[in-house]
Amino acid sequence: MSDHPAARSGRDLLGGLYRRPDDSNRHVTVSGQEIPLVATPADVADLDYARDLGDPGQYPYTRGIHADMYRGKLWTMRQFAGFGTAEQTNERYRFLLARGQTGLSVAFDLPTLMGRDSDDPWSAGEVGKCGVAISSLEDMETLFAGIPLADVSTSMTINSPAAIIWAMYIAAAENQGADRAKLRGTLQNDILKEFIAQKEFIFPPVPSLKLVVDTIEFASREMPLFNPISISGYHIREAGSTAVQELAFTLADGFAYVDAAIAAGLDVDEFAPRLSFFFNSHLDLFEEIAKFRAARRIWARHLRERYGARNPRSWLLRFHTQTAGCSLTAQQPQLNVVRTAYQALAGVLGGTQSLHTNSLDEALALPSEEAVEIALRTQQILAHEIGVASTIDPLAGSYFVEKLTTEMEAGAEAYFARIAEVGGVIPALEEGFFQREIADAAHWYQQALERKQRVVVGVNEYVNPDEKQQIPLLRIDKDVARSQERKLAALRARRDEAAVRAALGQIETAARDGANLMPRFLDAVRAYATLGEIVGALKAVYGEYTEPIII
Amino acid sequence: MSDHPAARSGRDLLGGLYRRPDDSNRHVTVSGQEIPLVATPADVADLDYARDLGDPGQYPYTRGIHADMYRGKLWTMRQFAGFGTAEQTNERYRFLLARGQTGLSVAFDLPTLMGRDSDDPWSAGEVGKCGVAISSLEDMETLFAGIPLADVSTSMTINSPAAIIWAMYIAAAENQGADRAKLRGTLQNDILKEFIAQKEFIFPPVPSLKLVVDTIEFASREMPLFNPISISGYHIREAGSTAVQELAFTLADGFAYVDAAIAAGLDVDEFAPRLSFFFNSHLDLFEEIAKFRAARRIWARHLRERYGARNPRSWLLRFHTQTAGCSLTAQQPQLNVVRTAYQALAGVLGGTQSLHTNSLDEALALPSEEAVEIALRTQQILAHEIGVASTIDPLAGSYFVEKLTTEMEAGAEAYFARIAEVGGVIPALEEGFFQREIADAAHWYQQALERKQRVVVGVNEYVNPDEKQQIPLLRIDKDVARSQERKLAALRARRDEAAVRAALGQIETAARDGANLMPRFLDAVRAYATLGEIVGALKAVYGEYTEPIII
Repeated sequence: MSDHPAARSGRDLLGGLYRRPDDSNRHVTVSGQEIPLVATPADVADLDYARDLGDPGQYPYTRGIHADMYRGKLWTMRQFAGFGTAEQTNERYRFLLARGQTGLSVAFDLPTLMGRDSDDPWSAGEVGKCGVAISSLEDMETLFAGIPLADVSTSMTINSPAAIIWAMYIAAAENQGADRAKLRGTLQNDILKEFIAQKEFIFPPVPSLKLVVDTIEFASREMPLFNPISISGYHIREAGSTAVQELAFTLADGFAYVDAAIAAGLDVDEFAPRLSFFFNSHLDLFEEIAKFRAARRIWARHLRERYGARNPRSWLLRFHTQTAGCSLTAQQPQLNVVRTAYQALAGVLGGTQSLHTNSLDEALALPSEEAVEIALRTQQILAHEIGVASTIDPLAGSYFVEKLTTEMEAGAEAYFARIAEVGGVIPALEEGFFQREIADAAHWYQQALERKQRVVVGVNEYVNPDEKQQIPLLRIDKDVARSQERKLAALRARRDEAAVRAALGQIETAARDGANLMPRFLDAVRAYATLGEIVGALKAVYGEYTEPIII
Repeated sequence: MSDHPAARSGRDLLGGLYRRPDDSNRHVTVSGQEIPLVATPADVADLDYARDLGDPGQYPYTRGIHADMYRGKLWTMRQFAGFGTAEQTNERYRFLLARGQTGLSVAFDLPTLMGRDSDDPWSAGEVGKCGVAISSLEDMETLFAGIPLADVSTSMTINSPAAIIWAMYIAAAENQGADRAKLRGTLQNDILKEFIAQKEFIFPPVPSLKLVVDTIEFASREMPLFNPISISGYHIREAGSTAVQELAFTLADGFAYVDAAIAAGLDVDEFAPRLSFFFNSHLDLFEEIAKFRAARRIWARHLRERYGARNPRSWLLRFHTQTAGCSLTAQQPQLNVVRTAYQALAGVLGGTQSLHTNSLDEALALPSEEAVEIALRTQQILAHEIGVASTIDPLAGSYFVEKLTTEMEAGAEAYFARIAEVGGVIPALEEGFFQREIADAAHWYQQALERKQRVVVGVNEYVNPDEKQQIPLLRIDKDVARSQERKLAALRARRDEAAVRAALGQIETAARDGANLMPRFLDAVRAYATLGEIVGALKAVYGEYTEPIII
């Protein structure tokens, strides 16, 4: 990033909205948003309760999507987890369920996320490292051995090859005897935010979006309790965006999926009730709460007013929350328990439907059992000890929080208008609009840290010079790759190779024809075609995407 | 406590206000207060901003006592600490100051709290155990060796012998060369709550109150920056009271001190600006915030309207907060970091002037260095990372929080009326009114735990059956008593015994005459009369108090 004036003015032609906070002595949020010294009734003079808030469970759902919220059902406590082999991760899931966790959430390793088998030379050094290695239906069956998929809800963080992994999940559940119509869970499957922030894409934007629409269509017809997509701001925020950017870009992505599904011939009320969201809960307590409240209001207004959805369920923004991994520190890691506790509180006061609380050691390693237990118990304390689950949207009416909520909505609307001027989300990401806005925000934040305008306890202030790393860390077994290679070799030797080839051929044909690929993926995974093989068939049709260089 | 109907009706003649929550499926706070499912604008229809809230720094100070609050000055981070000898505690203070603590807070051992010297046979087994042992000015000088008392503010948790300990502190500071008029700090010195809850009293109520008035008078004339009393709800709450009881009984005690000082001939505006308070921050986040806000409003209204104070500083309720020790668990002690973080947040959102955050190991032992550091850093995260110190009273206007605040005030006023009917605080405590009300509340809470109507994570739910205690605990050196005995023997051998006898004689005379004892205490401690000797002189005049048996 250059600060040369010409570079700035070049960017200004592209018309970003992000403006760096000035360096005066103002108090700003972690996003650089100015915080007023005090908010008063004058700040909410224009607020109309029925129009802008409504009771919980009433349009525009600012106060929450349910009339009884957590009294009816607590949020799902869902720790994102996965490492090593399917056997090792299965053991962690049993540990978490025994400790009172109420949903599962699968972390896949990088090869799986990129559609590569564990025995692909590309995968070397990464198998099972940052998540679990899943190359075939056999691995998926092992992952959930002894866990009845008919009864548990499962979230899967996977994007470019999401439809294939989902097919493996459905097949594994059906092999357990479950009815696919009753399966509950969420597929992340948000490819747009990969192009914007996380960069784990395989195919170009247009066929990528087509795969998403296939899953949305399949869910709306055969999996009425499953969320085929979790439109995700989390990674946008982790990449350094502001809260407004996270909100705006995530909802813009959401509208793009709605547009794509409508363009594919679906009725908005057929699929909108199954769209779900995933947000970050970052450090600034009130900014985060305002973000969640604004998100519900914006989504409800756009779905009803702009898309003409008639089913009230189409208007509801349901979301998962994860506390901000990027806010955790390797220094004095026990303090991450405190940070995570506040971030989790923001999620609950913001009305989240499910929650992952980061473990104190996540800046250093994958979570140990001890650390993940404290993280899960943090949610249980929130749910049972401090009273915040008993009343809905307790901050409603607060001059400060309502002002922030209104500003958050206005900030998001300004971004929507700008994205529309550029021609929509795909043109905007192809020309690097999002990436540049986020980079500018991240750059300001880094400078604020360096100048100590922002204090991070233990990092740039309150440092313990003699600190030694003392917490126990999880070590990943180095034999995971070899074990996966052996399993895959045995699988390939055992399966009906002709059936695999036929299934892969049908995928290619369907991809060329533009047919819905979900039934073809189900056939292929049942024949024990591997992830890498199925992705290979798609690459033959769709090609691979390389990000343009962004100036 | 009997639940026999006759016992109940006998009590009902005494007319308590506490009513046990019924056992239906309502959601209640940790105090048993019903929590509404949702609060709406109807709940604040009667709220008048100017009358009931006011801007921060404006009457009735519901929103805070300063117009700039934490932007002008953060709360004082003040960890209550003391154990073993004065040398050992001095070392802990230096550790805390080096870690960024901004004030000191002395925990004394039980003998000191009860006015006994370390070499008194009564003290056996308790010397230096739950706090630091201070028997003479020499110990006090050691306690603060190398810490400039002219520059630091010091809180001292001591009650019945508070005036004597304060005299030692003033003498130690003056021996360092400090000017007493510039000393800053707080003496707990709240004997009424000892009779109500903590039971560490020596003399009967009337002379006890007279000693308090002496310190108030002395502070108002010679120590304009020192708070001679910290009227304390903390121990009332720890004894099992509800939030409303804590609020009401503490403020009732405050009014009793005001009455006593006025009766002693002081003008309210002479001393009221130096009265300070000390509250508990318990588990229920919003109930606690409402309690702090209500406390400011009630105090301001009573001081202005009832006592006719004209100086706005007389109207300000300034308070220290400590997180709730009784909420911590010996099981899974790392979770206490989470509980303490939420309780500290309530203190800050409630506008506290200073804060002690409990350490995770306090249910098991006195805090270790590792544990107290996490507790202190929790305050630093609150101050610098999550944005809550940048805006004043961010929850103002919230339908729920304003409703709770109003209810809290009404509940306290009902108790004030009942106490007045009984004839005031001293008659009420002599007949056991407070004690009975608190016992009823504590009994309900215990039953709620046993019935699992309240969940305590790790204790009655989410228990780890195979849990082992793994955190490092502070061990107190067993030689403290012997070391103190040696020091006192040497002191007694060295000092001018005739001067000691003369000073003690003057104390007896002044006590009989009703003169202000502070100058006499200063003379005696400078002659190195010990704490036990001075208390002995007072006992000869005042006698000792035994609590009546309460039915």
